Amino acid sequence: MASSKSTSKGKGFQSPRGTRDFFPTEMAIRRHLEGCWREASIQFGFQEIDGPTYEHLDLYTVKSGPGIISELFSFKRSGGETDYALRPEFTPTLARMAVARGNALPVPTKWFSMPCLFRAERPQRGRLREHFQWNVDILGLSNADTDAELISVAIAGLQQLGLEPSMVQVKYSHRDVVAKLLTRLGVTDEHLPAAFDLLDKRDKMPADVFTEKASDLGLDSTAVERFDELAHARTEPGAHPSTLNGLDADDLEQLVAIHEALVHHGIADWCHVDLGIVRGLAYYTGTVFEIHETSGAERAIAGGGRYDHLIELFGGPATPACGFGMGDVVLSLVMEDRGLLDADSLLPRPDAFVVCADDAAAEHVVPTLTRLRRYGLHARRSYKSTRNMGKLLKEAGQHRSRCAIILGREFQDGVVVVKDLDTGEQHDVSLPELESTVIKLLETS
Amino acid sequence: MASSKSTSKGKGFQSPRGTRDFFPTEMAIRRHLEGCWREASIQFGFQEIDGPTYEHLDLYTVKSGPGIISELFSFKRSGGETDYALRPEFTPTLARMAVARGNALPVPTKWFSMPCLFRAERPQRGRLREHFQWNVDILGLSNADTDAELISVAIAGLQQLGLEPSMVQVKYSHRDVVAKLLTRLGVTDEHLPAAFDLLDKRDKMPADVFTEKASDLGLDSTAVERFDELAHARTEPGAHPSTLNGLDADDLEQLVAIHEALVHHGIADWCHVDLGIVRGLAYYTGTVFEIHETSGAERAIAGGGRYDHLIELFGGPATPACGFGMGDVVLSLVMEDRGLLDADSLLPRPDAFVVCADDAAAEHVVPTLTRLRRYGLHARRSYKSTRNMGKLLKEAGQHRSRCAIILGREFQDGVVVVKDLDTGEQHDVSLPELESTVIKLLETS
Repeated sequence: MASSKSTSKGKGFQSPRGTRDFFPTEMAIRRHLEGCWREASIQFGFQEIDGPTYEHLDLYTVKSGPGIISELFSFKRSGGETDYALRPEFTPTLARMAVARGNALPVPTKWFSMPCLFRAERPQRGRLREHFQWNVDILGLSNADTDAELISVAIAGLQQLGLEPSMVQVKYSHRDVVAKLLTRLGVTDEHLPAAFDLLDKRDKMPADVFTEKASDLGLDSTAVERFDELAHARTEPGAHPSTLNGLDADDLEQLVAIHEALVHHGIADWCHVDLGIVRGLAYYTGTVFEIHETSGAERAIAGGGRYDHLIELFGGPATPACGFGMGDVVLSLVMEDRGLLDADSLLPRPDAFVVCADDAAAEHVVPTLTRLRRYGLHARRSYKSTRNMGKLLKEAGQHRSRCAIILGREFQDGVVVVKDLDTGEQHDVSLPELESTVIKLLETS
Repeated sequence: MASSKSTSKGKGFQSPRGTRDFFPTEMAIRRHLEGCWREASIQFGFQEIDGPTYEHLDLYTVKSGPGIISELFSFKRSGGETDYALRPEFTPTLARMAVARGNALPVPTKWFSMPCLFRAERPQRGRLREHFQWNVDILGLSNADTDAELISVAIAGLQQLGLEPSMVQVKYSHRDVVAKLLTRLGVTDEHLPAAFDLLDKRDKMPADVFTEKASDLGLDSTAVERFDELAHARTEPGAHPSTLNGLDADDLEQLVAIHEALVHHGIADWCHVDLGIVRGLAYYTGTVFEIHETSGAERAIAGGGRYDHLIELFGGPATPACGFGMGDVVLSLVMEDRGLLDADSLLPRPDAFVVCADDAAAEHVVPTLTRLRRYGLHARRSYKSTRNMGKLLKEAGQHRSRCAIILGREFQDGVVVVKDLDTGEQHDVSLPELESTVIKLLETS
């Protein structure tokens, strides 16, 4: 009897396109990612912050120009005049908050956050309309060591998630080095932004289009060829920048500084130079990096770098800064590709599952649960009315409980049965010793 | 030189009205609340879920009618036709997700979530435009014991946060009991919704307005007086519903069942009957409850009850259900009122703070941090160039670090100084024993 009207109404009962429902297993994966991000951030001395889910629309146009508006979900309050937008990135909020602190902002300020972010784009693999992003920023310090510290915390997060240098690599470059190399090829200052743009898009266009666009920059055919080489210049993991083919060591000063800092931080094997890494043009000022799966199958896992003009742009004092963002969507795909996401093992596992094998003991199920929970234990029960022990223990197993607490006839003598569901062993336990028995059992697993 | 134009532009650099910036201390408080909510949920066997931050607009009008629209932040994608709204509550998302699971939905389904929610209203004390809410729901069970289990998990969360029955109380009522009592007063079935509405608003109107409205329901002056008594009828904490003055025990059957279940769950002293509790009219079907601070100073901390028609409303099979929502804003105010929010103690405390007392050892600061962090330790450093030990130890203290690791002249002999900043004791430690020494020190605190 479904009319076209009810079909159209039925549309309201699906999640919006490009968003996700997190059922318990999906949520367990998200919490696992967030937990590892958080753990790494705190080990490195970063403090967590957050801001509103939406901001004034002009907070985004300040940094990105009015062109950003069509990529945002923007809205007004009914009858209101203020334009708001769902946050597409966290950096403008961070800058606003840093500026609000004024002179009270410590040097350095080390902040991380894990906001939900929104893009009003066509959803694609690895790009959804709502996602979660780990943001890490260091404000107030300006040297290669700081850039390496920032990259270190990103790697620590990936390492906590089980990733290794053979699976993921940090590709880094430096704006000043690339500008110098482009200048040597004959690119004028005026053409530098266009040259960076071409470098960024190199792999998204046919060779002849690239050649044409490079010629438009005033480059002769030899220079075009060297530009192409430069766009693909990369080192082996952990290798010194001087191993880049055909480049003058004197031109690579800032890359060498980053490399040495990465060695100093013990993470050189997770990283290699890639001169094709550009990132946002108007924004980054020095070091830039992206983290990619080594197979090249997925989009970038993370991107970041140095943006020393950010705080000024939002009305604060000149403040050196660097940071990165790592989204949950691509990262989950990479982990899935690598077999690193076992959702079941990420779901909280019950310590005890209480079952009742005797009608007379039924009224003691709830008080038994209450006792266990008062000791901080994760305790569940069967809600079924069956007294069939086989079925009840099967249910305890489906919940992956560490043990079963069986309330049977012996309950009238103040005794319950504690069954270790990993080993199959079971023991009669007097009621006052129930909690300590379960806690001891958990310690042995 | 600030023109009116720049002032208006400057507005973009403030957080939107009714939203919050979470600097590290505010964020630590939020995470503390979420941590206790989560801990209680998991101990009681609930599984975490989440949905999109925005939904199709009609998901909200289905439950609340078109009147809800002006209270929502709604929007379209630029050039798109679909209407979306920022979620004002989580229940419609939960219902949509439960319906999507169909027959795969376990009985019972016990879900919790901690979403950000949005209201396009004028912000007031305790009511902001964006807040976080703990949602807990049990689907598939319909008895007083289930209602008591739901209330138990709410109390467990509050207890984890340090609250006690003297500070907060669950006020509960039951729709059927109140309907029966109103009917006995002479309210006809037709007038019942209006009578519930009047009960709900009783304390928001002058006595004469109440009398007039009660008379409009067809009640004589004696009945109006008894209606007023009923609106204020409540028991002492933990007391049996039969202690309600002037009411027939036979009429209180469902309240007695709840009371007995609360006793069974060991939480009766946290709860009392309050027949003035009504909750949403079209929505709740049985037990209703609110959690309030006992001083009456703040708004309700939480509200919930039984809504057995919810899943059907969203297109699913008939499914009994109950749930509650507890917002972070009022809860934080209550905890602040009670002196239970010590933000400093909630911030993650560093295990070790590395300082350098000798230029020759400076290059070893980073490798020392790396070693400590590889053991899962929270390690920070001084970024200052001073070698003044007093200043450096003062900084370690400001970071509230558990110990300081001092790299001095003795570093050339492979020795560092570990200073316990709680006791003031310090020891020379050979480098290979650094991690184990710090871990031992942490265990003794």
